[in-house]
Amino acid sequence: MALTCKLGETKDTIRPGAIHHLKATPETVHWGYFSPDIKPALTIRSGDLVFAEAITHHAGDAPDLMFDAGVERIFTEIDPTTRAPGVHIMTGPIFVEGAEPGDMLEVRYLSMVPRNNYGSNLAANWGHLYQEFGEKERVTIYELDPVTQTAHALYAYDFPGKYLVPGTITHCPVCDRSPALEGITIPARPHLGTAGVAPAVDEPVSTIPPGLHGGNIDNWRIGAGATMYYKCQVKGGLFSIGDPHVSQGDGEISGTAIESSLNCLFQIVLRKDFEFPSPLLETPKNWIVHGFGDDLDMAMKNAAKDMLHLLTEHQGLSADDAYSLMSVAADFGVTQVVDGTLGVHVRVDRSIFPHKGTVRDPQ
Amino acid sequence: MALTCKLGETKDTIRPGAIHHLKATPETVHWGYFSPDIKPALTIRSGDLVFAEAITHHAGDAPDLMFDAGVERIFTEIDPTTRAPGVHIMTGPIFVEGAEPGDMLEVRYLSMVPRNNYGSNLAANWGHLYQEFGEKERVTIYELDPVTQTAHALYAYDFPGKYLVPGTITHCPVCDRSPALEGITIPARPHLGTAGVAPAVDEPVSTIPPGLHGGNIDNWRIGAGATMYYKCQVKGGLFSIGDPHVSQGDGEISGTAIESSLNCLFQIVLRKDFEFPSPLLETPKNWIVHGFGDDLDMAMKNAAKDMLHLLTEHQGLSADDAYSLMSVAADFGVTQVVDGTLGVHVRVDRSIFPHKGTVRDPQ
Repeated sequence: MALTCKLGETKDTIRPGAIHHLKATPETVHWGYFSPDIKPALTIRSGDLVFAEAITHHAGDAPDLMFDAGVERIFTEIDPTTRAPGVHIMTGPIFVEGAEPGDMLEVRYLSMVPRNNYGSNLAANWGHLYQEFGEKERVTIYELDPVTQTAHALYAYDFPGKYLVPGTITHCPVCDRSPALEGITIPARPHLGTAGVAPAVDEPVSTIPPGLHGGNIDNWRIGAGATMYYKCQVKGGLFSIGDPHVSQGDGEISGTAIESSLNCLFQIVLRKDFEFPSPLLETPKNWIVHGFGDDLDMAMKNAAKDMLHLLTEHQGLSADDAYSLMSVAADFGVTQVVDGTLGVHVRVDRSIFPHKGTVRDPQ
Repeated sequence: MALTCKLGETKDTIRPGAIHHLKATPETVHWGYFSPDIKPALTIRSGDLVFAEAITHHAGDAPDLMFDAGVERIFTEIDPTTRAPGVHIMTGPIFVEGAEPGDMLEVRYLSMVPRNNYGSNLAANWGHLYQEFGEKERVTIYELDPVTQTAHALYAYDFPGKYLVPGTITHCPVCDRSPALEGITIPARPHLGTAGVAPAVDEPVSTIPPGLHGGNIDNWRIGAGATMYYKCQVKGGLFSIGDPHVSQGDGEISGTAIESSLNCLFQIVLRKDFEFPSPLLETPKNWIVHGFGDDLDMAMKNAAKDMLHLLTEHQGLSADDAYSLMSVAADFGVTQVVDGTLGVHVRVDRSIFPHKGTVRDPQ
């Protein structure tokens, strides 16, 4: 049990008992849904390291660049009619021994490395300006420079018809490709758009709406160096990752990021000494909470309430003090705006607080 | 005329013809309203420097700390019943010779220095969590450390009754004061919450709703080193400043920031070669546009449309390219959420673009 520290060992030096390699195959991914009934792809103990492959469901936008044998198997062997009700390819689930409903999974993301150096951005039919663009969908393919950690566009094409089937494979002839964003360099922000534990539900649920289980939060700060805390809803937690991105802006307004497969190294620590009601993110700089709702105003209110909870329950402030601090120092941002996935996050700078510990272990 | 550059002089080295000192007095401020009919407090030429005093309308929350003789004159000599329909004390207006409707005022904020080292945050009746706090209003008084550029709370008190009259003077007995936010240090972000040109209206309008004239934008990035572009709506522009803050978070959710008087140095340059439909902000790091609306979703849409305008009209991108870039690299944040002042801003990193010029002068 990870919380039983040995002499001289602190909670922050929990030693992994094993490192697991979780490849993404048709047998180890679930496409479009979370469910507590999926057979675990991997079983681990608290503290173990996992090296797992996250595959973008947009690899078919440029199969010549974004496919390899492993990706192709997933796209060709998984029946498109079963990719429902959501869209994301999720690797997992990972069963954590001893995890019970109400426990927290502390997921320490240690590295996120592109599987290949290409990604796709779709101006989608679910995008924020779809009507303003005459209901046109368009793909822009980006190349990542791993040395400078920047991306630049290679080419773009109008998507023929409507992008409705997750994992559509588009064989774009060269003549359809037009130059895009010449001279523009995008900073890379590799992160997971979707990750979380299995919700306690009776039938599979979509990967699209984020929620208390985590899921499609689409916060680009969920990258290497960040720690996420997810509240287990079922035995074993059943944690899965997917929807990898190399860059995204707050808002993700075209409906997608630069969608690109990532190889992810993370450590999972089971916590029974700490609880938080919604997905909580800790970066070297910030503590961040997430609110969701049917519109941005509701998402904003929910984010505000959960930041109040963090500051009072975990940082020991009075509610009055917390409210003042939030107004003068916490920054609210729009995470995403697609119908059904509206989200607002709120960041507070860790340097504000007198202690230098983590959110779960402030001393 | 500032745009007529001399030999060897670029647009970025426009020489000021004069430096003006605009003190805030009952004669040089207008409290609660913008109007094209206010007699100019100062007339300048394009390129001139102005050193102007911005006075917080919350100085009465701690008059022993935040009043001096100049502030007290404003609070005692201006009839409270005339402080309408808004709340902010605005210094100005400044008439810029040659400015016509449709011209842009480029305001280069060069320094913002606290007039004293104290500020007030009010958890107000218009705050985002007013109902959740049982309709209580509470004042927290902060002290600024000018060396470390941080603020810390000195004390707090529940406001007696309802905070309805702008410039209420509260003589808080020592016994009412309770400690607040002990051990917490807030980073300083001195900025102007409200600044803008006079709208073309027939009668005075409130300073509260932000709009195309600027006004109460409440973006903490409008500080020293930033440049704002405001579109003139009347002859002379009639620019005013007010609502000074030493710190505010994106969202300003209690309804106010750390409200504190600032002495501001800025240069105003009249531009007839450049146009933008909404208040545009340029910082050393970002270009930022602002959208407003009756709810956050509408504000978000308006901010997205104006960023599209910036990227296509001023950076020369196609609309398709601009939309992709916005989704993968532009960050949408919530500026404020009070009814009537809902605002979303969107930031794009200047380093993304190949040229290193300013938004108005990209070469």
